[in-house]
Parts: sequence; C-alpha cells; structure tokens
Amino acid sequence: MQITILGGGGFLGQKLARRLATDAALDGRPITGLTLFDLQAPARPNAPFPVRALGGDVADPAQVAAAIPPGTDVVVHLAAVVSAQAEADFDLGMRVNLQGTLAVLAACRALPKAPRVVFTSSVASFGGGQDARLEDDARQLPGNSYGAQKAIGELLLQDASRKGFLDAVSLRLPTVIIRPGRPNKAASSFVSAILREPLLGLETPLPVPEEFAVWICSPRRAVEWFLHAMAMNTASLGLDRGISPPGRSATVGKMLSALETVAGPAARRLVKPAPDPAIEAIVGSWPGSFTAERARKLLGFSEQESLEEIVQAFIEDDLTATKAERSL
Amino acid sequence: MQITILGGGGFLGQKLARRLATDAALDGRPITGLTLFDLQAPARPNAPFPVRALGGDVADPAQVAAAIPPGTDVVVHLAAVVSAQAEADFDLGMRVNLQGTLAVLAACRALPKAPRVVFTSSVASFGGGQDARLEDDARQLPGNSYGAQKAIGELLLQDASRKGFLDAVSLRLPTVIIRPGRPNKAASSFVSAILREPLLGLETPLPVPEEFAVWICSPRRAVEWFLHAMAMNTASLGLDRGISPPGRSATVGKMLSALETVAGPAARRLVKPAPDPAIEAIVGSWPGSFTAERARKLLGFSEQESLEEIVQAFIEDDLTATKAERSL
Ligand SMILES: NC(=O)c1ccc[n+]([C@@H]2O[C@H](COP(=O)([O-])OP(=O)(O)OC[C@H]3O[C@@H](n4cnc5c(N)ncnc54)[C@H](O)[C@@H]3O)[C@@H](O)[C@H]2O)c1
Ligand SMILES: NC(=O)c1ccc[n+]([C@@H]2O[C@H](COP(=O)([O-])OP(=O)(O)OC[C@H]3O[C@@H](n4cnc5c(N)ncnc54)[C@H](O)[C@@H]3O)[C@@H](O)[C@H]2O)c1
Repeated sequence: MQITILGGGGFLGQKLARRLATDAALDGRPITGLTLFDLQAPARPNAPFPVRALGGDVADPAQVAAAIPPGTDVVVHLAAVVSAQAEADFDLGMRVNLQGTLAVLAACRALPKAPRVVFTSSVASFGGGQDARLEDDARQLPGNSYGAQKAIGELLLQDASRKGFLDAVSLRLPTVIIRPGRPNKAASSFVSAILREPLLGLETPLPVPEEFAVWICSPRRAVEWFLHAMAMNTASLGLDRGISPPGRSATVGKMLSALETVAGPAARRLVKPAPDPAIEAIVGSWPGSFTAERARKLLGFSEQESLEEIVQAFIEDDLTATKAERSL
Repeated sequence: MQITILGGGGFLGQKLARRLATDAALDGRPITGLTLFDLQAPARPNAPFPVRALGGDVADPAQVAAAIPPGTDVVVHLAAVVSAQAEADFDLGMRVNLQGTLAVLAACRALPKAPRVVFTSSVASFGGGQDARLEDDARQLPGNSYGAQKAIGELLLQDASRKGFLDAVSLRLPTVIIRPGRPNKAASSFVSAILREPLLGLETPLPVPEEFAVWICSPRRAVEWFLHAMAMNTASLGLDRGISPPGRSATVGKMLSALETVAGPAARRLVKPAPDPAIEAIVGSWPGSFTAERARKLLGFSEQESLEEIVQAFIEDDLTATKAERSL
C-alpha cells in the first residue's frame, strides 16, 4: 500500500502518520511507502517503510501531483485552512479549501488506478444550531465560508467517485478534542482549550455558557475512523460519499465535569466565563447533534470513549509534547 | 437599472432580453442599459435603452468583468454547459459551470455596490427519482456532473451573499418546455421534442414510457420568475438563497394529450416509442415533483399555465421562428 497524507504536518495528519508507522499495514496489507505533504515538510515518524516528507502548496496542481505519484492506493486529504481563518481571509480559504481540493481531484484522476480518497468535511458544513439533531440526509446549508468550501469538496469528490476518477469517503468530522499544542484559528478552538489549558495549569476563557452543546470526537477515534475509511468497501455507499460518523453531543458543563473528575476542582476553576458573541455566533450555528445512523449501523464506524477517557487520553498521548512545545 | 445577462444568446436569455426591451423597466425602475454576453455576441433586441452584445468565455475572469461593469445592478447568470454535454465532457462542464461561476463571483465582488445575481440552478442537482416529491430543504445529492456543478454554484453564491459580495437568488429551474429550435444536448431534450417536433410535422422518438413524470415549467413562466427574482426583496431569504419555484409535475402521457387537444391526433401519432435506457437513467434520477411551498406561499413566485396553454404559447411565440431556423 502506497499512502499519501496531504496536510500531513497537522494535528490529525501527524497522529495518523505515527499510527501507520506503528501498524506497518492497513487492513492486513503491508504499507510500502508513505508521503507526507504540508506547507513545510512534515516531521517523519520512524517507520519500517520509506517515508517522504514534502513541503508545498495543496492549491498548486504540480506540487500535489508530485505528492500523489502513480501507484498511490490511498490519499488522505486533510490540508485545509480552518474555520475562523477562512472566514477572515476569504481568498485564502477559497484557494486552499476549494482550489486545493480541485488539485487533488486532478492528480487522482491522472493516476492509472483510481485511488481511495479520504476527505475530512466538517460539522461546520451544516446549519441547524444548538437544538438540531440532524439525520444522515440533512441538507448542508453552511453559515460560514469554511463550511461552504467543505460542502463543495464533498460534492466534487462524490461526483468524481461516480465518474470513477477516484473513490471517495468524506467524513464530516465533529470538533476533535483535545487538540494539543496552542490554541488555533478554528472558531471551535475553545472546546479543546477549556480542557487542555487547565491541564497545563493555565487559565482559559469560556466564550459560551455551560449548557452549550458541541458535537465532538476524540483524536484516537478520528484516527480509527480514518483507518476504517481508508480500507472500507465503498460499494455500499453508492452515490452518497458523505458520512457523519458517530461523534458525541456533549455540553461544555459535562466536559468540565470530566475535567474535574480526572484533574480535580482546581483545574476546573481555571476556566473563566468570558462570553464572546462572535465565537458563539459561528459555533452556535453548527448542529449540536447528529443521529449518525448510517455510520453506526451500516458502515461500522466505532463509537466514542467517555469524556473522562478523552481527558485521560490527552494526558497519556499529548500532555508531555504540548508542555515541551510551549516551554511549560 | 443596468442589467447583464450572461448566456444572453441562449433560449431563456434571448426571451428575457426581449421582454426587458419591451418593458423598458424592472419593478418600476427604468432600465438604462443591458449587456448580453455569450460565446458569440448575441442578437440584440430593439430597445429604448443601449444594448451591448459581447462575445466571450464566462470562464475567463477578464471577459466576465468586462461584461459586468461598475454600476451593474443585476446580473442574470444563465451561461452553462447543459446536462448531457457536461456528462460527456467533464472538463468542459467544470470549466464553464464551476470556473465560470467563480469568475462571476469575482467580477461581482469587485463592483463598488453588490449586485443582485439571479442564478439558474436545476432540478438535475437533486436525486430522488420519479416517485420523489421533494421538500424545500431537501438535500442536493446529484447523480450527474451538471447537477453537481449547479449545486456547487448555489453554495458559492449563497456564501458570497452572506459575505455581502453579491445578493443571490438561485432558481432551481424545472425542465423548461417547449424549447424552440433544434434538439439540444440536455438529457431532457426529448421533453420539448415530443411536443415541438410534431408541431413542425416531424416524427420524434419517445425514450421513456408514457407514465414517466417530469417537473416542468413554461418559458413564459421562467421569464416571469426571472423578473421577480431580479427585483424581489431578499431580506426574507436569510442564508438560504436556493429556491425551488412552482413548476408542475406532468407525465409524458398528459403532455401528449395536451398536444392532441391543441394540434389533433395526427400530431400525437408522430411521437414514436423508442426506449433509451441511457436517457431514462439520467432524467429518471431527477425528482418527479417538488412541494415548492416557500416559493409559492412566502416568496410570491407565480404558478404554471395548463399544459394546453403551454403548447398554445409555443405556437404563438416560437413556431414561426423555429420553422425559419430549420428551413421547414
Ligand atoms: N480538528 C478538528 O476539530 C476538525 C473538525 C472538523 C474537520 N476537520 C478537518 O480535518 C482536517 C485535519 O484537521 P487538523 O485538526 O489536523 O487540522 P490542522 O490545521 O492541524 O492540519 C491541517 C494542515 O493543513 C496544512 N495546510 C494549510 N494550508 C495548506 C496548503 N496551502 N498547502 C498544504 N498544506 C496546507 C496546515 O499546514 C496543517 O498542517 C482538516 O481538513 C480540517 O478542516 C478538523
Ligand atoms: N432550459 C431548461 O430546461 C433548463 C432547466 C434547468 C436549468 N436551466 C439552466 O438555465 C440556464 C439557461 O437555460 P437555457 O435553456 O437558456 O440554456 P441555453 O443552452 O439555451 O443557454 C445557455 C447559453 O450559455 C452559453 N454558454 C455556454 N458556454 C459558455 C461559455 N463558456 N461562455 C459564455 N457563454 C456560454 C451558450 O452559448 C448558451 O447560449 C442555463 O444555466 C441552464 O443550465 C435550464
């Protein structure tokens, strides 16, 4: 198996790369090569197979083609400009999130054999708001440019799959918590920050009320979903390549209780209410829940751990590296 | 009012241009200029205001910008590669239907004042098939590249409206009958042909059974809808710029009965059953009906005439010109 991860230097790309290096196989087939592509050449995991690390722009068709050489079996397309940044810089979002996906389509289509493409769409491609519990065939009516670009990416890859140019699985990822490192430019950055910063001993603002519900998943689960999507039989998907995987709808209050259970009341007290209507307007337009029936019952995507386990997993997987990165 | 029609040389563009020339005003405001843009410079109607006719490619940003000068109040974006052609030539469809709409977005965004943009999406952007009766918030899961490109156009223009770059109304047009002139490369071409060709005294194949249902509208109604969409107050649309206007669900058998009522049994006998699974596969994936509640009850879009009136209107409006064009 030859695999390429676009956006391979990011949060989930690096986790997936390390997992592939450990497993050395995907669905029982040995991995023979991995290409990691990002703006800067990404860090390479120690692996029993060759790993290429390329720096480049996903919106540049030639650079993307170089990252997806003939013989590529699977492309995991994670390269993206995230929500608040795509909202602040419309041109950048269109270039990376739209023209980038068009470049991926063109590169895959040029291969002798149509590769599997795993695309990460987002809960932000839906409207509906806090009280919504969306069915699998819900309409995507995004209230932000990032979400519009993700919904467009789904349409492009679905049509390209129908044409046989590639074989896409688009996962509408929930907000993945707990993101390591620093706060980022996603409007949902606070959802990780209210758990991560206290675990680092730092104060952090809470821009929404405690009743605020978020559709979340863990990074461990996201990586499991990627592995499943990279190898699953897509025949049963038919035309519909968009999958809402089984996240969990959790209120901020429940997340803070889990933090308290794992790290004590002092940790929870570091979270300071600081209402931010701009953040609440963006994240509050995303649906608070999905039924995720198709992914759960028909397609075999795995369920979330408990919130306490998610907090514990961050401590095990990412706390040390995050402290080092931030010199704490 | 300064108006631009992109695709102004086509079936509906020419009808709209002639109507604007006759009315000389839109919603009570005098028209001060009209630009018609198409691959070849379109025919210009006699009008009491200046009419520019430009030849160019809607996928070329500079040519589109020249067609949408500062001061433009309304852009009607009809330029498109139709269904069967976009299916046969993927690159052409992507270039005209996707990159073309991106060029329109860029040109409108560059204007000092955000113009109204009327975009023609299509019933082909939906799946569901013959038995479907789709609600206004139905998901667009197109089974053809043309429909995917139209659904993408809706997402682009909806997001650009939210950002204030332009002010879009996207009409998901039904199959417009009776199209004058020659059969074209739309998969739905036969729906007009089974009425037009007999009125010209010509035999024509019927690729689907008589029970086959099609969501149709008349060209007179489509032009009324354009005028309404060009001037309506869009405040009530909110985020959702996609409108399914009140077409009519009609079986082929009902259409042929209307033909017989207007033109006699000899006309109907010119329609020869000739099953074509390729055509039926494309058109059969489009929904046979929509509720169109929002357009009908909230937004004031007008209803269809009877099928007999639609046949009669073709005889009044288009039969002579079609005979001349085809030297009949
Ligand atoms: N993490 C989440 O909560 C979440 C939720 C929903 C969807 N997603 C999506 O999942 C994917 C991965 O998420 P993540 O959290 O790892 O994001 P991330 O921001 O950590 O990684 C994305 C990577 O894309 C790279 N990138 C940006 N512009 C690029 C360009 N022009 N060329 C090449 N690379 C470029 C970035 O450098 C970054 O390393 C993204 O597509 C994201 O939109 C993530
Ligand atoms: N007529 C229908 O039944 C129907 C149904 C649904 C949607 N629509 C949509 O409504 C619009 C108008 O329909 P119509 O029946 O008048 O179509 P049409 O084909 O008669 O007109 C479209 C025009 O676009 C022009 N065009 C194509 N490529 C171009 C390019 N690269 N640059 C500039 N112009 C280009 C064509 O020359 C043509 O004159 C189209 O967007 C169509 O997709 C039509």
